[in-house]
Amino acid sequence: MTSESKHAGMANAIRFLSADAVQAANSGHPGLPMGAADIATVLFTQHMKFDPKNPNWPDRDRFVLSAGHGSMLLYSSLFLLGYEDIDMDQIRNFRQIGSKTAGHPEYGHAAGIETTTGPLGQGIANAVGMAMAERKLADEFGADIVDHHTYCLVGDGCLMEGISQEAITLAGHLKLNKLIVIWDNNNISIDGPISVSDSTDQIMRFKSCQWNTIEVDGHDPEDISAALEQAKKSDKPTMIAAKTIIGFGAPTKAGTKDAHGAPLGNEEIKIARETLGWDAEPFTLPADICDAWRIAGLRSAQAHKEWQKRLETSDSTLRGEFERRQRGELPAGFGDAIAAYKKELADEQPKKATRKASQAALEVINGVVPETIGGSADLTGSNNTNTSQTPPITPDDFSGRFVHYGIREHAMAAAMNGIALHGGLIPYSGGFLIFSDYCRPSIRLAALMEIRVVHVLTHDSIGLGEDGPTHQPVEQLAALRSIPNLNVFRPADVTETAECWQLALEAEKTPSAIALTRQDLPSVRATFEAENLCARGAYELAAAEDEAQVSIFASGSEVELALEAKEKLDSAGVPTRVVSVPCFELFETQSGEYRAATLGDAPIRVGVEAAVRQGWDAIIGSDGIFIGMDSFGASGPYKELYEHFGITADALVDAVQARLQA
Amino acid sequence: MTSESKHAGMANAIRFLSADAVQAANSGHPGLPMGAADIATVLFTQHMKFDPKNPNWPDRDRFVLSAGHGSMLLYSSLFLLGYEDIDMDQIRNFRQIGSKTAGHPEYGHAAGIETTTGPLGQGIANAVGMAMAERKLADEFGADIVDHHTYCLVGDGCLMEGISQEAITLAGHLKLNKLIVIWDNNNISIDGPISVSDSTDQIMRFKSCQWNTIEVDGHDPEDISAALEQAKKSDKPTMIAAKTIIGFGAPTKAGTKDAHGAPLGNEEIKIARETLGWDAEPFTLPADICDAWRIAGLRSAQAHKEWQKRLETSDSTLRGEFERRQRGELPAGFGDAIAAYKKELADEQPKKATRKASQAALEVINGVVPETIGGSADLTGSNNTNTSQTPPITPDDFSGRFVHYGIREHAMAAAMNGIALHGGLIPYSGGFLIFSDYCRPSIRLAALMEIRVVHVLTHDSIGLGEDGPTHQPVEQLAALRSIPNLNVFRPADVTETAECWQLALEAEKTPSAIALTRQDLPSVRATFEAENLCARGAYELAAAEDEAQVSIFASGSEVELALEAKEKLDSAGVPTRVVSVPCFELFETQSGEYRAATLGDAPIRVGVEAAVRQGWDAIIGSDGIFIGMDSFGASGPYKELYEHFGITADALVDAVQARLQA
Repeated sequence: MTSESKHAGMANAIRFLSADAVQAANSGHPGLPMGAADIATVLFTQHMKFDPKNPNWPDRDRFVLSAGHGSMLLYSSLFLLGYEDIDMDQIRNFRQIGSKTAGHPEYGHAAGIETTTGPLGQGIANAVGMAMAERKLADEFGADIVDHHTYCLVGDGCLMEGISQEAITLAGHLKLNKLIVIWDNNNISIDGPISVSDSTDQIMRFKSCQWNTIEVDGHDPEDISAALEQAKKSDKPTMIAAKTIIGFGAPTKAGTKDAHGAPLGNEEIKIARETLGWDAEPFTLPADICDAWRIAGLRSAQAHKEWQKRLETSDSTLRGEFERRQRGELPAGFGDAIAAYKKELADEQPKKATRKASQAALEVINGVVPETIGGSADLTGSNNTNTSQTPPITPDDFSGRFVHYGIREHAMAAAMNGIALHGGLIPYSGGFLIFSDYCRPSIRLAALMEIRVVHVLTHDSIGLGEDGPTHQPVEQLAALRSIPNLNVFRPADVTETAECWQLALEAEKTPSAIALTRQDLPSVRATFEAENLCARGAYELAAAEDEAQVSIFASGSEVELALEAKEKLDSAGVPTRVVSVPCFELFETQSGEYRAATLGDAPIRVGVEAAVRQGWDAIIGSDGIFIGMDSFGASGPYKELYEHFGITADALVDAVQARLQA
Repeated sequence: MTSESKHAGMANAIRFLSADAVQAANSGHPGLPMGAADIATVLFTQHMKFDPKNPNWPDRDRFVLSAGHGSMLLYSSLFLLGYEDIDMDQIRNFRQIGSKTAGHPEYGHAAGIETTTGPLGQGIANAVGMAMAERKLADEFGADIVDHHTYCLVGDGCLMEGISQEAITLAGHLKLNKLIVIWDNNNISIDGPISVSDSTDQIMRFKSCQWNTIEVDGHDPEDISAALEQAKKSDKPTMIAAKTIIGFGAPTKAGTKDAHGAPLGNEEIKIARETLGWDAEPFTLPADICDAWRIAGLRSAQAHKEWQKRLETSDSTLRGEFERRQRGELPAGFGDAIAAYKKELADEQPKKATRKASQAALEVINGVVPETIGGSADLTGSNNTNTSQTPPITPDDFSGRFVHYGIREHAMAAAMNGIALHGGLIPYSGGFLIFSDYCRPSIRLAALMEIRVVHVLTHDSIGLGEDGPTHQPVEQLAALRSIPNLNVFRPADVTETAECWQLALEAEKTPSAIALTRQDLPSVRATFEAENLCARGAYELAAAEDEAQVSIFASGSEVELALEAKEKLDSAGVPTRVVSVPCFELFETQSGEYRAATLGDAPIRVGVEAAVRQGWDAIIGSDGIFIGMDSFGASGPYKELYEHFGITADALVDAVQARLQA
């Protein structure tokens, strides 16, 4: 076998595993795997370092298939390289329930799938996060332990999505020179030639974002390999524009949109086999090709072994710390530090906006948890996500722990996903709650991937005041609560804020959103409780003096109002209890007994939250009284807004009295 | 007064009205208005055509303040130009409840505010939509009637947001040469100098997106004016990079982040007055400056008059059509066409995916409603949003009615807002329901602005099958329903789809989202009903044979399943009725009587929707049975997925039987 024919055979293995799997599933995207097969072959077999038998080796190179619809490219490659999770049965069962080979690559289904992709533009932003994590950890643990590249394959779709441009400019700014993006420049999208919808000079655009760019023939293995070598030497992130033919080898569909997102058809595949000289039956491989791939798959074991040796001979404290962080375990002192801090708070009873309470909690956390990496989307002074331990990361110095993400909420959230996926760090963000809408697709993916990221979302209601309805979240709490596997916290005071932070950091498989106020709030927890009461999701904060006639359930800033209403109702002879509800999702997971006891049996239930009612019926019942918003907000001083929208203790009392008299 | 000192005085009028208003409100953003005052003065008084006394004149130039936090720039300018909605009291009452001068510019508060801005990047994408509308209408009605520019002021924040890059590439592709964007290049964001978070060469980036670019000194009125002249001659959209000093004139804060988002302080303003030679007391103006502005404000009346003459002498049919569309009225034949089509459907009882039913409805609608302008975010063949009447719009030919938006969901939604705000057209989109997450901020703004846009959102559940959980909406219906003033439709068959389309087009003040299936559905409406039953939001589709023991409420594809379950329950001696629920929001607005009758008094209520429960409690009660999703989906053939997740008639029947036996 000449080296040329060997390459061709290896690439064709990807092509036909992919085309056949799509055909068998009767759905999927053959075009990208066939077009990018040469790129993947060169990248995986000649350039990347990884170890299929120890696939989670921390210093492996990362590969992100941002164009996730081309999932068969990844599955074929992993199978060919000898990753055990993906065997031929998995290839055959592409897109079937229970298989590891889902329609789009899903993190957690199989080793080698570094992130879940499919929603376009997310993968490249994840890759930016991974490259940030690598650089940060290399700074901390040294190049002997952390020194790898992050590769990412993007299509035109990824580059059209706004999120990619946020991520690209961030990467260019931070000089992430170990990030190498390969653009599968096949000139086709679902609607047809790219010229139908775009005329951008992508090379010039990357250059304007401070990237190194290289143009290659995506079907010339030497050209591709030389570009990868060159990219590794760059002091900037590199974009390799690889001109490819979508559906390469398909006789009538190659180079057209027909190759993109539907099975090619048996006849088309048959002729492609003839054209490319591929004799193997579907789901079989010529032994020499298989061997060539498996040998390439073992190539990196040596790099892993050498790394292992370096790790073993490194400073034992450093090593211990590295390994703890790889396991995702929090430091031993974490719980005690929170407990000590809660004691302080119980003594001092500070009155503070919860955004500031969050900063104070972070001051404690960042002191004992060195793996946190904070940030803000250009609202640092408003989100209060920086602390004394978190100087900024700059393009030339990654010793800091705070990322100025710029006005890029979406890329921030997706980069955080990449940081968490990389391992060794726990990312948290800073943004306004209203702008969770800007990064919702990435928050959703964090929930789907079951990774630990923490979104600090301040200015969490009309309580932000004068900025008005464009900045006042009304439906964002409900919208976030609708996402499966996302904990949405809305703490009521300094102590609850500390507890919610503790829960967020301890939730290894669940991302968290912490909604925080701009305005000051009193302490509502009078005494120290060792238990993390917020872990219950909801708990009785103030009991009724007598048999309760009213249960008030409230979250965040409205707990103060609930307590005020309780006092008024108590005085009026209506025994009332108050339940604080910092987290719906955790309350859902409590025992039926606890839930029943917490909901109580007072005949009247009231919910209070300066937001829409949706979701509250699960707690107060569809006949419960709800004091909140049913429209967008308005611009004005916040106390006036609360009056204007009838979110006051008096309004609550009136509604209860009306119900009692009904 | 020399022309120089006159300009300086006019610009200073903006500066001090703005600084004083922010100071009085004790919150707001003085930096942008002070920095961009020279630009605004030149643009409004020398270049734009408008008519303060007839502010909604259709052929006026549009101005969009994409950097909406600088709202006082707009309010000051409108006041100075003589727009009657904004008087000095409004300026004094900046950011107070009930004032027209909200923290961020809000569409509908005052004439001259062309769109609601504040969430960054939205404005420029709106402006792209306005420029598209202008070009489309100019093609249709001729340059005598439609021929104006769209101007937009953006800040660095707008340009960092991904949505702006989607919009910019779209505008470059479409060669929208009457779009002129001025970049307030003040090099400052909230976190500090732009260098903290960005290193992009914005000029090169715009060039790569096929824009014309010009660099000017943003404080040199002649330079600015010459650039605007040049821009008007370009055959591409133009970006004018105007170098400015944020907070121009503030002695210690100019050029720093301290000028950005907080009142300057009385002392700082006092010294600024001295520095710039501004003697007028707060909220007063020198008569000569005031006159100069008002005269400029009247300048354009002439252009309006000339336009009026051209309109009056134009073809009367054309004119009638233009005026009808400006009023936003649907054509007279619309209702009849829908009724005739519904009759056909009742006769034929077709089995069709609702996405295809939507296409068939659109075929009818587009035939009688010439003002619709459709599109898709690169999913034309999947969304089925094109019809025989909608050839594509291309960069060189706007006679079409279909926009290939590319893989740019967010810019699509924001551009649609711009199209609707412009007037004369009704935009509808095409996308997957899952990707409503990508454009949520723009959908929200449509709801807040009360404008008519229609989002066609196909592939609306796990029913899309093999693409898997990244593409399967689970929480998107709930999340959309949480937005105030948005109608979320989920029709069950061809007839409901037609009715929902009718409602969407008739809702002049409410945007709509129509969720549609990928998979085929039977007709569930057996007979023709002249009434639009979907207008009720929910209605009894199948009565119980006897006193109902069970009411099943279902939407979209799950109505079929509900009917199947009814049959089974009926057979088992459990009289059951089925209520179709195509629109929660419209059901909410029905009379208490109708609601009560529709909810019925069967002891068991069941909700069925292949999505999360959130929101359903309002209909089925918190003790109702819900058959739906409580997790993300999975990749597999759709019928297997319904089985896998227990969304079947049998599961429903079992749940009811269990309840009956409990």
